[in-house]
Amino acid sequence: MPSEFDLIARYFSPQTTHTLLAGGDDAALIVVGEGMELAVSTDMLVGGRHFLEDADPHGVGYKSLAVNLSDMAAMGATPRWATLSLALPAADEQWLAAFARGFLELAAEHGVDLVGGDTTRGPLNICVQIMGEVPGGKALRRTGARPGDTVWVSGSIGDAALGLAYLQGEIPIDRAEAELLVARLERPAPRVALGRALLGIATSAIDVSDGLVADLGHIAQRSGVRAVLDWEQVPITAAALRRRDTAAVRRCVLAGGDDYELCFTAPPARRDDLLTLSTRLGLPLTSIGRIGAGEGVEVRDAQGALMALPQRGFDHFG
Amino acid sequence: MPSEFDLIARYFSPQTTHTLLAGGDDAALIVVGEGMELAVSTDMLVGGRHFLEDADPHGVGYKSLAVNLSDMAAMGATPRWATLSLALPAADEQWLAAFARGFLELAAEHGVDLVGGDTTRGPLNICVQIMGEVPGGKALRRTGARPGDTVWVSGSIGDAALGLAYLQGEIPIDRAEAELLVARLERPAPRVALGRALLGIATSAIDVSDGLVADLGHIAQRSGVRAVLDWEQVPITAAALRRRDTAAVRRCVLAGGDDYELCFTAPPARRDDLLTLSTRLGLPLTSIGRIGAGEGVEVRDAQGALMALPQRGFDHFG
Repeated sequence: MPSEFDLIARYFSPQTTHTLLAGGDDAALIVVGEGMELAVSTDMLVGGRHFLEDADPHGVGYKSLAVNLSDMAAMGATPRWATLSLALPAADEQWLAAFARGFLELAAEHGVDLVGGDTTRGPLNICVQIMGEVPGGKALRRTGARPGDTVWVSGSIGDAALGLAYLQGEIPIDRAEAELLVARLERPAPRVALGRALLGIATSAIDVSDGLVADLGHIAQRSGVRAVLDWEQVPITAAALRRRDTAAVRRCVLAGGDDYELCFTAPPARRDDLLTLSTRLGLPLTSIGRIGAGEGVEVRDAQGALMALPQRGFDHFG
Repeated sequence: MPSEFDLIARYFSPQTTHTLLAGGDDAALIVVGEGMELAVSTDMLVGGRHFLEDADPHGVGYKSLAVNLSDMAAMGATPRWATLSLALPAADEQWLAAFARGFLELAAEHGVDLVGGDTTRGPLNICVQIMGEVPGGKALRRTGARPGDTVWVSGSIGDAALGLAYLQGEIPIDRAEAELLVARLERPAPRVALGRALLGIATSAIDVSDGLVADLGHIAQRSGVRAVLDWEQVPITAAALRRRDTAAVRRCVLAGGDDYELCFTAPPARRDDLLTLSTRLGLPLTSIGRIGAGEGVEVRDAQGALMALPQRGFDHFG
């Protein structure tokens, strides 16, 4: 069996473009650009919980970085460096090779240097920390939403949860449509370019990982405001549209997580800027509600009536 | 059972002193000092492998940060920020409270802000990332050892391995002495002040985590030199001294890891500076060998004869 040092060297040899020192020492050394703040986030993925133990390792590698890139997107930060710690039940080289490809291909796509990490034996666990740069004072926090702001989301919402519901046999969906939804679940596209473009436009932002209502609730709570969502405005995929009024679709769209779209607020005056940005990025941006005084999140149907909220977003200990 | 958000808030509410934004958003925001490089390292500890599942949680919290602080020490960096990801089999509040105390007390002692993290359910796994500052161009790398340099270590070597051997019933040691050794295993003191003071003095450094020969081997390999150790000079504790010539002690001292002392090289002309530093820090610094041309590590006995090397340092997949 190859040794720990061999494994690391073979699959994760650092190929860095903007790092002083990566690998082979007690720590990596990086230099943060002048006038830039460093945004730091971390996510831990557990085998059998965040993904199936027998999931395609390329996809697991991809997603373990993607969810971290999404956190950078939600701050408007440009992801620059990552560390990766892995606990593996065995030194399965085929698994590691595919995992590394999935991780490193996405890293290269976003110009992220893998600067360090740790490998050990143990129940499958992947811990990624991401570091990115954002111009001083400009980061998109959750605290800036103000009464009068419009609520926006990128892309379509609920896709990942619908894909999961399909895989679990809970919702019948045509195979072609289902494949798109499952791809959204397994290979979410972190909205890094959007996040960066929202600097100076959005007043607050978050990525939709716990569920739309739960995540918008974080903005409302941290900003000390109330968010009103228009159910009919929430952009959903064709497969969901045909079942819009079922409880399953409502749950997937309002409480399903894992879409990794951005939900953000902006003054109404920035509407045209956002529609122009949508065209430039080739990414739908849709206004789905507004911010008012008060607290919490409410969802209104087409007639303006208050809808019952599905259960809250995913909670690992709830 | 309390929710994930409650747990995080209750035990790890950030109390930061030098962080722009920590907790409650998609990422933390930090500012690295002008002219400083950021040193970044990460370690993953698995329950039942790096510590017993029923180990004292205060000690586990302490050690999970201590091993990361030790990486900063080995770079000469001042630890400043950390993130902590936790997978827990259950939301055991008593365990979490003690773990958090162990972690946060050591963080406070070293002025480290806990800026972010993740909590999830899963087999016990602790992943810490540490970030520290080091003046530009000054970090202690493994690459700078030169023929003629002297090899030094701090403290005494092999204590942690002897403590483990005692706990496992392999070596009989008086109870009082054994307690000191076990404390060295369970609560290693990261040599942060020493690392910082070595900037401008040491030509290379590493912390002794895999074993003295293995770790010095990393310096030799990365510096392209050969290291010669004088067995009789390696500082060991009284309990080991009385059994200096047994295979068990040789193995613990030369191949035992987990001491988290610093091993470093310096030009012979810096000897007086190092002895003065030793007095100032109240920490023994001992010259144990020298650097020559060639590669690898050799150990010489009191008669200058080449000693057989015990097996290499700990390898998680070896």
